[in-house]
Amino acid sequence: MKKLKFYGDSRSGHCYKVQLLCAEMDIEYDWEEVDILSGDTRTAEFLMMNPNGRIPLLELPDGKHLAESNAILCYLADGSEFLASDAWSRAISLQWMFFEQYSHEPYIATSRFIIQYLGNPADKKIDLGQKRAGGISALGIMEQQLGEHDYVSGVAFNVADIALFAYTHIASEGGFDLDDFLNIRNWIKRIESRSRHIPMVKK
Amino acid sequence: MKKLKFYGDSRSGHCYKVQLLCAEMDIEYDWEEVDILSGDTRTAEFLMMNPNGRIPLLELPDGKHLAESNAILCYLADGSEFLASDAWSRAISLQWMFFEQYSHEPYIATSRFIIQYLGNPADKKIDLGQKRAGGISALGIMEQQLGEHDYVSGVAFNVADIALFAYTHIASEGGFDLDDFLNIRNWIKRIESRSRHIPMVKK
Repeated sequence: MKKLKFYGDSRSGHCYKVQLLCAEMDIEYDWEEVDILSGDTRTAEFLMMNPNGRIPLLELPDGKHLAESNAILCYLADGSEFLASDAWSRAISLQWMFFEQYSHEPYIATSRFIIQYLGNPADKKIDLGQKRAGGISALGIMEQQLGEHDYVSGVAFNVADIALFAYTHIASEGGFDLDDFLNIRNWIKRIESRSRHIPMVKK
Repeated sequence: MKKLKFYGDSRSGHCYKVQLLCAEMDIEYDWEEVDILSGDTRTAEFLMMNPNGRIPLLELPDGKHLAESNAILCYLADGSEFLASDAWSRAISLQWMFFEQYSHEPYIATSRFIIQYLGNPADKKIDLGQKRAGGISALGIMEQQLGEHDYVSGVAFNVADIALFAYTHIASEGGFDLDDFLNIRNWIKRIESRSRHIPMVKK
């Protein structure tokens, strides 16, 4: 049987999200490594598959494509323990996944991008500084939630945790120290101690 | 029976999304108008309901809260014609809703915010200029998709259209002219001609 295929850049937390869920769910897949800095996602061929030119990109055995890491998580987890089946619980998970995309990633992941991918150039210093407050605010909101619940959307580990874990556990690579966020650090330990957990591959 | 309640600012496209879906679905609700520029979403009372201090915020009759406009759309539409029940179709709609939050809203809605809410101040001129390319790119991706399909996620009007319609139909208020985007303009007309459609209230 043909397997699922992903196009992704393993340095990307968004790509790690789908790798982590597949490990948790024991899903086999093929992986085609693409380099976003070399323009691999801007070729005519790639843009035919995803006009938005982003990774990860899922390809089904029948050739259909699905983009957006969090949409891919929801698709793969549908009907499993990693995404609740009742409308309210699913909506709460979605709330945290939209939080991740709008209020967390644009500060924490992009700071890491500037420092780790671009080599922290001088002309990005102001840009990087402007991302501090938003990142600390996002971590503060998570810290509060994780003081009241073991997982971001409540009692069970699910796709919302995977979406937020990806860039939170490497927040220090973007200059965000987690020393002041005990609940987040304990949540990271809980996730890392899961039996099927895999670490992010560092090239 | 107690109704659903929303906290929202009617000038916000995110708030219009939930108003439009409720009109399409004939859902009655109470509305508490809050003014984001006056700090209404940063009070201790509001932050108890939504630690991220954003609107719209849904309050259920039992007192539970749900934030993030697109998560609210999915919750309300669950089980209806406005959100497909099969995993793939639902994931495609989610793909476009995450696209809206990450690749569309930060350019098109925030440009409108700078011009319409903040009065287009001189110190935001560079910021506004930097949003041009991203906004035009997002509209280009929608234009391509809507050349192939009547609605953004395929054949049927659903929550993904509502999520993208909110700020696209008023893109000109953020300086984005739709003259070059015929497919988008036709899609806007299709949505506006629906029998239960309501326009955005302009204060």
